Amino acid sequence: MLRSRSAVLSVAVLVTFLGSCAGSQTPPSAEPVAAPAPPPDPLPSWNDSATKRQIIEFVQTVTDPEVASFVEKENRIATFDNDGTLWVEQPLYTELTFAVARVTELAPTHPEWKRQEPFKSLLAGNTEGVLATGQRGLVEILLASHTGMSARHFNTIVVDWMNKARHPRFGRLYTELAYQPQLELLQYLRDNGFRTYIVSGGSVEFMRPWTEHVYGIPPEHVVGSVVATRFEIQGGKPSLLRLPEVAFVDDKGGKPVGIHHFIGRQPILAFGNSDGDFEMLQWTTVGSGGARLGLLLHHDDAEREYAYDRDSTVGRLDGALDAAPKAGWIVVSMKDDWNTVFTN
Amino acid sequence: MLRSRSAVLSVAVLVTFLGSCAGSQTPPSAEPVAAPAPPPDPLPSWNDSATKRQIIEFVQTVTDPEVASFVEKENRIATFDNDGTLWVEQPLYTELTFAVARVTELAPTHPEWKRQEPFKSLLAGNTEGVLATGQRGLVEILLASHTGMSARHFNTIVVDWMNKARHPRFGRLYTELAYQPQLELLQYLRDNGFRTYIVSGGSVEFMRPWTEHVYGIPPEHVVGSVVATRFEIQGGKPSLLRLPEVAFVDDKGGKPVGIHHFIGRQPILAFGNSDGDFEMLQWTTVGSGGARLGLLLHHDDAEREYAYDRDSTVGRLDGALDAAPKAGWIVVSMKDDWNTVFTN
Repeated sequence: MLRSRSAVLSVAVLVTFLGSCAGSQTPPSAEPVAAPAPPPDPLPSWNDSATKRQIIEFVQTVTDPEVASFVEKENRIATFDNDGTLWVEQPLYTELTFAVARVTELAPTHPEWKRQEPFKSLLAGNTEGVLATGQRGLVEILLASHTGMSARHFNTIVVDWMNKARHPRFGRLYTELAYQPQLELLQYLRDNGFRTYIVSGGSVEFMRPWTEHVYGIPPEHVVGSVVATRFEIQGGKPSLLRLPEVAFVDDKGGKPVGIHHFIGRQPILAFGNSDGDFEMLQWTTVGSGGARLGLLLHHDDAEREYAYDRDSTVGRLDGALDAAPKAGWIVVSMKDDWNTVFTN
Repeated sequence: MLRSRSAVLSVAVLVTFLGSCAGSQTPPSAEPVAAPAPPPDPLPSWNDSATKRQIIEFVQTVTDPEVASFVEKENRIATFDNDGTLWVEQPLYTELTFAVARVTELAPTHPEWKRQEPFKSLLAGNTEGVLATGQRGLVEILLASHTGMSARHFNTIVVDWMNKARHPRFGRLYTELAYQPQLELLQYLRDNGFRTYIVSGGSVEFMRPWTEHVYGIPPEHVVGSVVATRFEIQGGKPSLLRLPEVAFVDDKGGKPVGIHHFIGRQPILAFGNSDGDFEMLQWTTVGSGGARLGLLLHHDDAEREYAYDRDSTVGRLDGALDAAPKAGWIVVSMKDDWNTVFTN
C-alpha cells in the first residue's frame, strides 16, 4: 500500500474494515445474461454503448498508418491503475487486508505488540485504539507486514496468502475478482500493439507475483510503490533485504513520476478510478498533442459490485470526476457499460 | 552520474580531467584489419577465442529446449553496465564531462558562481580549488547541471550536447564510441530471445535519449540513478520538475536493487567492467542455480582504447577482478578478444 499521503483516510478505512469483518455480507446476485455478441467483438463484456465505441475508435485512430494520429508501436503505452480499476478494492484495499492478516499471523513472535500500539489495538479488534494512532500507526502496520525479510521470502508470503485468502463478500480468491471487461480490454490493446502497464499506489512486490497469470501483465510492466531495499550476502548467497522505510510512493503526483522513471515513455492511454489517478490522467492526456485517451471507472453498481465515489474513504473519486467532462475523459459506468463484472 | 558513494574518487577524476583538457592526445592508431569471418558468425568483431566460444555456448545452453538448462524467453534477461562496458568512460565519465560543460555554459546566468565553490574553481580552471570542496562539491556540480528544469527540457539539453560534444582523444561524438563487439553481442542476445537492459550508475535520463539508436536498447530497458522529481501543472500543462536531490543511486549494491525494482526479474547474464558492477554480477550468478553468465570487460588495450584496472579512479576494477576466477566470471580482454573496438 504505502499510500502515506492518503494514510489518514486509510486509517479510517482500516477501522471500517476491522469493524465489519464480523458482519454478514449479501452474496452477489446472479449476473445478467450477457447480450450475444458477434464473434469478432474484442470486448464482449462491454455493452454496445458510446463508451465502447469511443474506445474502439481510439484504438483504430492510433493504429491506422494512413491517418495523422497514427502512433508507432513502441509508443503505444497504456497504463492502468490496479485497485478499483482492474480488481475490487472494497471494502478495503486487498493489500491492507493482507497487512492486517500478516500482523495477526506474526503476533505470536512479537509479544511486545500486546503492549505496543497500533498492534495492541489491532490484535484486540479495538478499532478506536487503532484510529487513535493515526497515520503513523498505519505506516507501522504496513511496514511491520511488508519488511524485515528478503525479497524472495516476501514473494513467497504474498503467493501463499493470495492462494488462500478470500474476499469477505464474494467468497472468491482476490485474484478471481479481476474485472472481466478489463481483462478483455487489456488483451484487445495488446493485440493492437500496445504494451499494458500497471501503475498502482500498491507496492510493486505485492503485485508482481500474480499479475502475469491474472492480467497477462509481466513483472517488468508493473510500476508501484517501493520500500528501501539493501543488497547483502547472507550465508554466502546474495539477498535483497526489505527495509522498514518507504522509498517511493506511486500515488497521485507520484504516478507520472513513476511512469517517467520506470517506463521512460509517456502513455497514450490511462485508465483509473479514483483521485489517486488524477495526475496520471493529466500527464497522459493534457497538452501532449496527438490522440490520447483518459478513462475513469465509476463504481455505480451496488448490486454486482459496489457503488461509491465522492464520499468513499477507499478509492475516493471526486476531483477527477469533476474534471472529466472538460478534460474529455470517459467516465465508464460499471452498471451501464459492463454486461459482466467478474469472470465466471 | 550521481555516484555519491564514489564521489570522492570522482572528484580526483574530475580534477585530472580539468588539468588534462589542454594537453595533447595521441590520435588512435589505425585499427588492425578484422580477421575474415564466415557469414553466419553473429560476433564478427570477437576473435575466435575461448571467451567467444563460452558466450556462444552459454546462449545455446539456455535457448535449447532439449536441455535441462533451457530458460524460457521471458526470463532471458541480460543486464549491461554502460560506462566502460558499452562505451568509452576514459578519461572521464561522459556524464561528468557533460556536467562540467553545462556548468560552464550556465555560468553567465549564475554570477554568484564567481564567488561560490566549487563553481568558482571550476570556472577558473583551478583544479586544486575544486578538489578542496570534496564530495559535496562534486554533488553540487552534478545537481547544478542536471536539475532545476523540466524532464522535457533536460532531454533537449542532453540531445543537443550529445550531437555536438566530441571526445578529447578520438575526436568522435560520444555515441560513436560505443564498442562494436558489444553492439554485436547485444544484437546476438536479442536475436536469441533475450531482452537487453542497461543497468548503470549514470542517471537514467542522461541515457534514454540516445540508447535506442546507439545500442538498440529502448528507454524502458534503461535502469539508472534518478533524481527526485515533482509533478506540477505549469501554464496549464503537466510538467515533471527535476529537483536537486538524489533519489536513487544505481551503483554497487544499488544495481541489484535497481534491477529488482525496475525489472522485477533476475538476470541470467550480466556484463560489467568495474567494481561498481561487482554486486550485479553476484546477484546474477551466485547461488541461483541454472545457467548463468557473468562477464567483465578488462581494459588492457592502451593502443586502441585505454589500459586501466586496479589503480584507476575512473572504472576501477580490483575486487571484482580478484573474485572472477572463483566466481567463474569471464574476464574479456579488449586486446585479445576483440579484433575491432569501434564501429568504422
